[in-house]
Amino acid sequence: MTDALSIARDLIRCPSVTPVDAGALGVLEKVLGAAGFTCHRVTFSEPGTADVDNLYARIGSEGPHITFAGHTDVVPPGEESAWSVGAFSGEVKDGILHGRGAVDMKGGIACSVAAVLEHLAANGGKPRADGQKSGSGSISFLITGDEEDVSINGTIKLLKWAAARGEKFDHCVLGEPSNVETLGDTIKVGRRGSQSGTLVVDGVQGHVAYPHRASNPVPDISRLIVAISDEPLDHGSAQFQASNLEFVSVDVGNKAFNVIPGEARAKFNIRYNDNHTQASLRELVETRLAKACGNRIKARIVWEPSNSNVFVTKPGPFTDLAVAAIEEVTGRKPELSTSGGTSDARFIASYCPVIEFGLVGQTMHQIDERVPVADLEKLTKVYRGILTRYFG
Amino acid sequence: MTDALSIARDLIRCPSVTPVDAGALGVLEKVLGAAGFTCHRVTFSEPGTADVDNLYARIGSEGPHITFAGHTDVVPPGEESAWSVGAFSGEVKDGILHGRGAVDMKGGIACSVAAVLEHLAANGGKPRADGQKSGSGSISFLITGDEEDVSINGTIKLLKWAAARGEKFDHCVLGEPSNVETLGDTIKVGRRGSQSGTLVVDGVQGHVAYPHRASNPVPDISRLIVAISDEPLDHGSAQFQASNLEFVSVDVGNKAFNVIPGEARAKFNIRYNDNHTQASLRELVETRLAKACGNRIKARIVWEPSNSNVFVTKPGPFTDLAVAAIEEVTGRKPELSTSGGTSDARFIASYCPVIEFGLVGQTMHQIDERVPVADLEKLTKVYRGILTRYFG
Repeated sequence: MTDALSIARDLIRCPSVTPVDAGALGVLEKVLGAAGFTCHRVTFSEPGTADVDNLYARIGSEGPHITFAGHTDVVPPGEESAWSVGAFSGEVKDGILHGRGAVDMKGGIACSVAAVLEHLAANGGKPRADGQKSGSGSISFLITGDEEDVSINGTIKLLKWAAARGEKFDHCVLGEPSNVETLGDTIKVGRRGSQSGTLVVDGVQGHVAYPHRASNPVPDISRLIVAISDEPLDHGSAQFQASNLEFVSVDVGNKAFNVIPGEARAKFNIRYNDNHTQASLRELVETRLAKACGNRIKARIVWEPSNSNVFVTKPGPFTDLAVAAIEEVTGRKPELSTSGGTSDARFIASYCPVIEFGLVGQTMHQIDERVPVADLEKLTKVYRGILTRYFG
Repeated sequence: MTDALSIARDLIRCPSVTPVDAGALGVLEKVLGAAGFTCHRVTFSEPGTADVDNLYARIGSEGPHITFAGHTDVVPPGEESAWSVGAFSGEVKDGILHGRGAVDMKGGIACSVAAVLEHLAANGGKPRADGQKSGSGSISFLITGDEEDVSINGTIKLLKWAAARGEKFDHCVLGEPSNVETLGDTIKVGRRGSQSGTLVVDGVQGHVAYPHRASNPVPDISRLIVAISDEPLDHGSAQFQASNLEFVSVDVGNKAFNVIPGEARAKFNIRYNDNHTQASLRELVETRLAKACGNRIKARIVWEPSNSNVFVTKPGPFTDLAVAAIEEVTGRKPELSTSGGTSDARFIASYCPVIEFGLVGQTMHQIDERVPVADLEKLTKVYRGILTRYFG
């Protein structure tokens, strides 16, 4: 059975909580291999992390090359007794498929595989039927088992591995649950970058009865927190909401009420848009800090390493054909959104334009994660529509 | 030998690090008993603390009643090999007595005992010679072994014990090292009160990528810290410097850069003068907090229990006779100071007017704590001068 529901149920029945595969990639390898794909299972390692399995499968050897990306690993089910059905049972009740990964994102992968198989069947087993435009086309799957946790032995390494083999991707569809309330409401075409840091303020320790002999870093770091985070970093861009800096912790750790401490630290995270690069963003924050410190406050920022740069896929033929396919199936014109958290698209964006379109995210990571079977059927049609237009 | 140096050396040779007595109170009991004092050794207990010995000794049964207060316990010597002489050897080198407690405050106690013995010897063994004003007078010693550490089984309980026996004190001299640089520069006539509290700000936890769904307590507590501590609480009073509020810690304990925390806490301590009572002070801070919170920020203060109320001995006949005695011996007119940390005077002030005058505090709590023998002699003369004037 190679329809989306069957593939989704087979995937959900593998309890593939990161970093365990539990047979999930094998489900895909089997159906894709049978359809003529060349499959590669690649295991990546890193000291201090568990080894993780990945799958790269391709059919065709010429361009244009569209790749469907995704992850088969899922977050833990939480309290399993709280679920209406077994978290890994893949049960359908009243037309709704239940199970961990139903929307994030075994359901999305199942739809893409089903759509590709239908497309190939309709084109003589090839991405593009003979006699059409030059280039017989390629379709591939970039599937990882390491997205939900540390994301170290997953997509970022699989892309490097593929590049080293000479693989070139022209466009990518990542099947993450991009829709907010209804299938068709949102395509994600970019993500903000993420940059963390720690603000450290040096004071002079002393007795609370003699404050003039000490220099208290607590009111100083308070002033700096307000000065750095009060003014917006920008007012948004054509495709992004405003960048945002949040102080998420401030800590001194002084247990004595009669001691003025010698140091205070505050952690912050910035989600930034395409008005900034990582370098210009750091400079902006450092400049604000220097201004707020004046000659009096001694403070510095320790920046965290970050591989979450901002990226965006600009509106154009690729987004247009996705929008057309979505409108045809759902009757909705999706918003091209760049909001929300991070995903593997941040890695893919360095190799080719990427859009994210999948199921509705409302129940992701929750007890009773679930998806209407009708949504699986519609999403399969959308992917089919994308393929038809892409190779048309 | 009942001169100040001898008594001081005998006391220093008892390694009476709180809560250990090591024979120190016995040294005093012996010389005071021989001079006609009625001595009481009183041991106080409290669950969770060590039992501590105290000494109350009185001569005379009528008013006026002056008491000399003090403590025989000392802070630990620290690295003993760093001392020039043994920390508990009581050695005199080049006219300077070395040892833990030399100035804080075995030296001060020794001077008061020596002065009292001289005074009694000059008055036929009584506080006041016959044929003088009505009331033959009383002199007593309130000596504790629990001042340097938790101060639970010491002066506070000894005063209650004495009150229960019907003891009434008219005036008190506490021999703490009150002088800053030179003998005679400072009498302490009061202390600021101390009040601690914790500011708690409630936010709403959330993901850093969706700040509009959360309410971040970190910038809010930062704003409150600045709003509460920026403006002085007052501008001082006739006898006190300005009250002061210091935030000594601010803590969230959030380890995740991508999570907006649900709560933030900040600890503060206030040293306050006689413009305030504990109640009016708390109200002042609560009012500032409410104003800074407006309708938006949810915050509260958890107040710590405090027995450090502000007190002051107003200038008058008692301070005048002490100033006169000091001027006569040292040639200096002492400042009537209320600055600095806390002492047992805060407890005594509830029973009678109290002044603090002792040695020079510069080496207290340090390696090589020491006092010139000449200072012991001068302080003994000052105390003698106080007694002469008091009973004159």
